[in-house]
Amino acid sequence: MHQYQAPMADFQFLLNDWLDINSHYLAIGASDMDAELVSEVMAQGAKFAQEVVAPLNREGDEIGCKLEDGRVTTPEGFAKAYKEYVAKGWNAMLGNPDYDGQDLPYTAAVPIHEMLNSANLSWRLTTMLTESAVLAVDKHASEELKTQYLAKLISGEWTGTMNLTEPQAGTDLALLSTKAEPQADNSYSISGNKIFITGGDHDWTSNIVHLVLARLPDAPKGVKGISLFLVPKFLLNEQNEPETANAVSVGSIEKKMGIKASPTCVMNFDGATGWLVGEANNGLACMFTMMNDARFQVGMQGLGTCEASFQGALSYARERLQSRSPQGPQQPNEKADSIIHQPDVRRMLLTQKALTEGLRALSLLYAQQMDVEKYCSDHRKAQAKQIVSFLTPICKGFMTDIATEVTNIGIQVYGGHGYVREWGMEQLVRDTRIAQLYEGTNGIQAADLIGRKLTRDGGAMLNATVEMLSARINSMNNKKQLEQAQLLLHEWHQTSCQLLNSEALDVAGAATDYLHYSGYVILGLLWLQMSDAANKSTNTKIKEGKTKTCEFYIKRILPRKDVHKSVVLSSASDLMALEAINFDF
Amino acid sequence: MHQYQAPMADFQFLLNDWLDINSHYLAIGASDMDAELVSEVMAQGAKFAQEVVAPLNREGDEIGCKLEDGRVTTPEGFAKAYKEYVAKGWNAMLGNPDYDGQDLPYTAAVPIHEMLNSANLSWRLTTMLTESAVLAVDKHASEELKTQYLAKLISGEWTGTMNLTEPQAGTDLALLSTKAEPQADNSYSISGNKIFITGGDHDWTSNIVHLVLARLPDAPKGVKGISLFLVPKFLLNEQNEPETANAVSVGSIEKKMGIKASPTCVMNFDGATGWLVGEANNGLACMFTMMNDARFQVGMQGLGTCEASFQGALSYARERLQSRSPQGPQQPNEKADSIIHQPDVRRMLLTQKALTEGLRALSLLYAQQMDVEKYCSDHRKAQAKQIVSFLTPICKGFMTDIATEVTNIGIQVYGGHGYVREWGMEQLVRDTRIAQLYEGTNGIQAADLIGRKLTRDGGAMLNATVEMLSARINSMNNKKQLEQAQLLLHEWHQTSCQLLNSEALDVAGAATDYLHYSGYVILGLLWLQMSDAANKSTNTKIKEGKTKTCEFYIKRILPRKDVHKSVVLSSASDLMALEAINFDF
Repeated sequence: MHQYQAPMADFQFLLNDWLDINSHYLAIGASDMDAELVSEVMAQGAKFAQEVVAPLNREGDEIGCKLEDGRVTTPEGFAKAYKEYVAKGWNAMLGNPDYDGQDLPYTAAVPIHEMLNSANLSWRLTTMLTESAVLAVDKHASEELKTQYLAKLISGEWTGTMNLTEPQAGTDLALLSTKAEPQADNSYSISGNKIFITGGDHDWTSNIVHLVLARLPDAPKGVKGISLFLVPKFLLNEQNEPETANAVSVGSIEKKMGIKASPTCVMNFDGATGWLVGEANNGLACMFTMMNDARFQVGMQGLGTCEASFQGALSYARERLQSRSPQGPQQPNEKADSIIHQPDVRRMLLTQKALTEGLRALSLLYAQQMDVEKYCSDHRKAQAKQIVSFLTPICKGFMTDIATEVTNIGIQVYGGHGYVREWGMEQLVRDTRIAQLYEGTNGIQAADLIGRKLTRDGGAMLNATVEMLSARINSMNNKKQLEQAQLLLHEWHQTSCQLLNSEALDVAGAATDYLHYSGYVILGLLWLQMSDAANKSTNTKIKEGKTKTCEFYIKRILPRKDVHKSVVLSSASDLMALEAINFDF
Repeated sequence: MHQYQAPMADFQFLLNDWLDINSHYLAIGASDMDAELVSEVMAQGAKFAQEVVAPLNREGDEIGCKLEDGRVTTPEGFAKAYKEYVAKGWNAMLGNPDYDGQDLPYTAAVPIHEMLNSANLSWRLTTMLTESAVLAVDKHASEELKTQYLAKLISGEWTGTMNLTEPQAGTDLALLSTKAEPQADNSYSISGNKIFITGGDHDWTSNIVHLVLARLPDAPKGVKGISLFLVPKFLLNEQNEPETANAVSVGSIEKKMGIKASPTCVMNFDGATGWLVGEANNGLACMFTMMNDARFQVGMQGLGTCEASFQGALSYARERLQSRSPQGPQQPNEKADSIIHQPDVRRMLLTQKALTEGLRALSLLYAQQMDVEKYCSDHRKAQAKQIVSFLTPICKGFMTDIATEVTNIGIQVYGGHGYVREWGMEQLVRDTRIAQLYEGTNGIQAADLIGRKLTRDGGAMLNATVEMLSARINSMNNKKQLEQAQLLLHEWHQTSCQLLNSEALDVAGAATDYLHYSGYVILGLLWLQMSDAANKSTNTKIKEGKTKTCEFYIKRILPRKDVHKSVVLSSASDLMALEAINFDF
């Protein structure tokens, strides 16, 4: 089985040659950061991902999680790896320095996140949600709650969870029915059942901090009557140490397709004690602080599995000897040539490479904009916020849809061996499949992109994104590629603007195609820029790899955009023409 | 969990209104067959698939197969269902009547095969390979071997297996190393290891008949030195009953992504006794009698899982209440509308429906051609044989690639619930994934289509297929659709002919795109014909369902062909431009 190696040279190329983070840090006033420091962080992160987390992945899938006597145990080695993660400060990378966080820029943290996702998606998931929970507590919780909980969530001494879904309320949170009764001491008594709760229980930490959506007794109906509560597994004593078990229990662990080493719990809140986070009836907005971060992080899961699958497929294609190349024997001293010399295998590997490296560029561009939003306080902050808002559903939806394609190619390169568990290729398909579903299905991402992000303020978020991309394109050297990029951007911008006047039904019908159309166009733009930047590189592998893969992307992947574009502006009438009762016979 | 129901009305429409099997049976001289008899066979088959086989599917996936003391046990109920299958004569549907087979036309058997695949792919797999083994024994074995083995394989009293793959020899059978030493009594001593052997052992029957590829001592190197042997699990006594254990053993069962209730065995032949089937050194041709049948049957597995996934998704989309339709409340008395009223869910369901019903039409058209080849002895036989040869890699490759898309949509319609095993939707994705890999990966199918089937005899197989399709199109009533179909067929034919002059490397690079291009075009042609036929139907559900779904296919699925067409005629230079060492950094 291939052992994961962090793609350091690509990170270095993208951060230094393509994004120029040294200039970026100067521009945003992150004066203590530079490429050298980021490089050092990445080297340490790679070591941890490769040596500590990745080796647990295959066995974790076979062992899974267990629920015994109400307690969840994770596979052997998972808790130990987590303790090392916390001890080395990885959980605190992005945290608020007032609560012992390291306050690193996103451009430094995102490569580490990718590595952890490549190494072990199940293991990464609980830590990812803790980082998202930190954001909601930091932004919305009272000072008292922050004093009690925030530093320990930032360090990772305790983990966090996200309790939204109920059996009858998934996409439609208006149907949520968990109740919160105010108590005399300013706490609330929380009662209800939540499903699909990642890390709802585990054996890693002395406490778990549940963020729970529930309704107050007098709350309005629908989504405007939902509030957010902090509900710890153990209530704290006067020294703020966990002491008394709260009325929170695990009903069961879901049996799933993948991420088997991540405990997905049914949670029962039976009059559990909790505290309000943010204002009453404003819970959805508070939860979205967490959710937006999680959506990007889920996109990163897609990217992580793409890289892992590409590496596995590439190593196998180089080693597996079968048949001769149509170009004649390439390894005449062997019984056969390695299958990397077959054009159809090249097609598969280049598809993986072009999509994976394209998504990586997207993830770092997104991180750069997050940095701007975080560090700047002038007009750049507002623009970056708009860009981040616009790109979030694309990152979540497109990166994870692509991951299912790329990881399936990984199986295909192995032939029948790809279907056997020991090689690890099919696990990547099963693990990454969840990413198209949670934190809002990709259909919901598409609806968010076209129905909210695109249309709000007459296309302001789109325009900010186009302006940023346009500025990047205009700095390209290769004139032909520059023109190609300008045309592509213009076409997408024009098409997007036409959608602003569409009927609601047509917009809903065009949502997924618009998301994919946008994804393929943006990756095309990023590939042209990468090719342009790589052309200056003295590293032959970077120069050859990027310029040739760009050609492949433009010729063989980018044309997919036209299939999506062809229906984006059309009516949804064909979707609704067949009566629901006539779908079967 | 949705309970599978055989799509009887669609079978009836396709066989009677679309293919007109009564006229077909008259034309080919199958005088004892008619639509009524086929209908009765289908009704009984549906009952068996729905009531006996389908209920075992979910548990079978959880339990899997076990190897203890060298013996394989399948999940509870599997052996009993198999005995009922044999007792009711289902295994003998297509068998030679001289050996107690029923000699039914393929148009009668193929719907049953689809149903069994929908109901339980793991269970179906072993029976499928027995049917394929029957063909090889019937066509190539000596009279003595046939007397001993054929009737029992046809009835299903014993099952058959296919032993090709070795650890070092998968796609490239030239590397095969299993040895066959001639013995004084005309038998052979077979020694070697085979992997990925479906039904290599099980607890269903008193004997198992292994068909094994091996090399004779003086055999030429490469694929021209491979012979086929029949190697029973138990050697027969003088009454032709199994008695002495042969030197065949199961090394292990593979741990796989899916089809867990199907035992995929590592087989060890340690001087096992076997007999030559067909001529020495002609084993590959003999095995291909079996393989060609199996390739179509694997395509049918894809179709079966598509139907099962579509049914599951449709039933959930009708029941699951979340949010309101963008067209306003559709179920005002409920808390929310069922999600089938969401345009994006419609898009998913219609994609499933258009692809599934399109593939079903393809499968029955293929069956019709198989009937012609079987029953006719004039020029029609030769033409049908060419068409079947041309369509086999398309059926195998396209139907199974589409199945991975369609079954993944099934998960997506369920949201997070689709990822949980109890709903059965993710099992379909895992089970059907193997179909893209075995009996030759889909890359091999694509190479077979473009490199052998298309180019042989100056495109004769293509031309026969185009002629058949053209005749079908010309009988259409709707003039606009007729013209649309003619244009589409012409474009595909022209493009295909241009490929006849391409360089070998470019052909290899275009293979997968040509397979998909052909698949989408053929489904487009079949949809236009179905729409035309349905327009005459007095059944509103058929008329509405087929005509509206055709519109959806033409508008939203067919444009995918252009992505594939755009690269089919181009050079493969971009695939080979990047040196193998430069794929990573």
